[in-house]
Amino acid sequence: MKSIKLAVVQFTPAFKRKEENLSRIQELISNLEADIIVLPELCTTGYFFLSRDETSELAEPISGPTCQFFQKISKQSNAVVVAGFIEKKGNKIFNSCLIAQPGKKTPRVYRKTHLFYKEPFCFDPGDTGFFVVQDTVRDVNIGPMICYDWRFPESARVLTLLGADLIVCPSNLITDAWRTVMPARAIENKVYVAVANRAGTEQIKDEELLFKGNSTIYDYDGIAVYTAGASGDEVMVTKIFPSLTRDKSFNEFNDVLKDRRPKHYKPLA
Amino acid sequence: MKSIKLAVVQFTPAFKRKEENLSRIQELISNLEADIIVLPELCTTGYFFLSRDETSELAEPISGPTCQFFQKISKQSNAVVVAGFIEKKGNKIFNSCLIAQPGKKTPRVYRKTHLFYKEPFCFDPGDTGFFVVQDTVRDVNIGPMICYDWRFPESARVLTLLGADLIVCPSNLITDAWRTVMPARAIENKVYVAVANRAGTEQIKDEELLFKGNSTIYDYDGIAVYTAGASGDEVMVTKIFPSLTRDKSFNEFNDVLKDRRPKHYKPLA
Repeated sequence: MKSIKLAVVQFTPAFKRKEENLSRIQELISNLEADIIVLPELCTTGYFFLSRDETSELAEPISGPTCQFFQKISKQSNAVVVAGFIEKKGNKIFNSCLIAQPGKKTPRVYRKTHLFYKEPFCFDPGDTGFFVVQDTVRDVNIGPMICYDWRFPESARVLTLLGADLIVCPSNLITDAWRTVMPARAIENKVYVAVANRAGTEQIKDEELLFKGNSTIYDYDGIAVYTAGASGDEVMVTKIFPSLTRDKSFNEFNDVLKDRRPKHYKPLA
Repeated sequence: MKSIKLAVVQFTPAFKRKEENLSRIQELISNLEADIIVLPELCTTGYFFLSRDETSELAEPISGPTCQFFQKISKQSNAVVVAGFIEKKGNKIFNSCLIAQPGKKTPRVYRKTHLFYKEPFCFDPGDTGFFVVQDTVRDVNIGPMICYDWRFPESARVLTLLGADLIVCPSNLITDAWRTVMPARAIENKVYVAVANRAGTEQIKDEELLFKGNSTIYDYDGIAVYTAGASGDEVMVTKIFPSLTRDKSFNEFNDVLKDRRPKHYKPLA
């Protein structure tokens, strides 16, 4: 039974200071011994934008320097790297996360499906839908979702049906409800869940957002095996056993996927 | 804003002793002042059957004495009564729950969609699918599911999409994972959830099942407002405000149903 090393990085970006953030991220992860490294949503730019003008200015295509930076880190550290960034694609702007794999030239990109709070002022709704990145070298199937996607049971369920062993969730969480729900996502789907949240605050005009940290790695029984502090940067590394999630049975008779009865789920899709 | 009184009854049936159980249930609930009374799965017969011969012997059609008993209680107490029983329909046997409404002649019946453990030896898979009972007198929309249906996010989600304010879940739970997951069902759907579990043990041959009690009423924020003990019979009554669940927003910009993006959920149904 093969284990791999999963690293979840809690990181507090400096608002709009992309180069500074990339440099601090490099310090945090360049010597990390891990097979997968997960960073927060929008970790290179900060979060609390209020207009497309602001996000446009920081947005980059997949071929841009931010993706190149993470692709290089991925190559150097021989790890899959997952990180949130502002993506420009034609005249659209997405709240995206890249999945950089060693040996690949460009990363895969997931575009956030469910937009939260004031994000619709700054981003287009994601158009990639959910997909799973199969990493055959490390024998792990990675299903990305971003922050508010957590609240929709459909997100993690679709990723599981597509074969995810590990759901990675770069986040900028400002409420606590996710801490009640994420263990359920792990249990109902029998998958690992890695939430890389950010910490710190951002104030725009009269409104301050407090990002709640507490990044957590859940095993497939919904147990929080590592939880970071509520504030501060932190790197958590743990072993996971992706192949153990592929047998979806949990007793001699029941299986969380085989027992599904999709003909009774018509209103969902 | 209208409130109604919800009663959840934790009850330990005597195995196969239907008349004794009905008589004890009558004592427990006949003087209850409530608008809705929820009893456990298979509360009139006990649970741990191993063959269709056993369940056949105790099964009844909707026109049978068990349904008549609960319909009468419903009329006398002017309350909606939800209770699990073994249903016979043609040559099929279902793990069902009845929803008896005052003023109706026969109850509605929900047939358990997802069968647990050794139930396939004794029951047919439910064929009703999920539906919601609209009680216009009490202004509450009740969505029934039974026990193991909890593990499938699809169950509570479909009930919510069909308009449930309150999910009732008659149960015979023998694990603890549901206590982690049920608050998520409430939060992700913004609905009340009432779990009427049984307590006690049943031993068949070498195998003993311990039913874990801890029946719980969750508000639509996932807070357990009442939890019964791990053993013993118990009646919990609380006020709920069904109409508050109909606004699915949880901040100025987000709504747990309007924010869904079904075109990305195709693998589900």
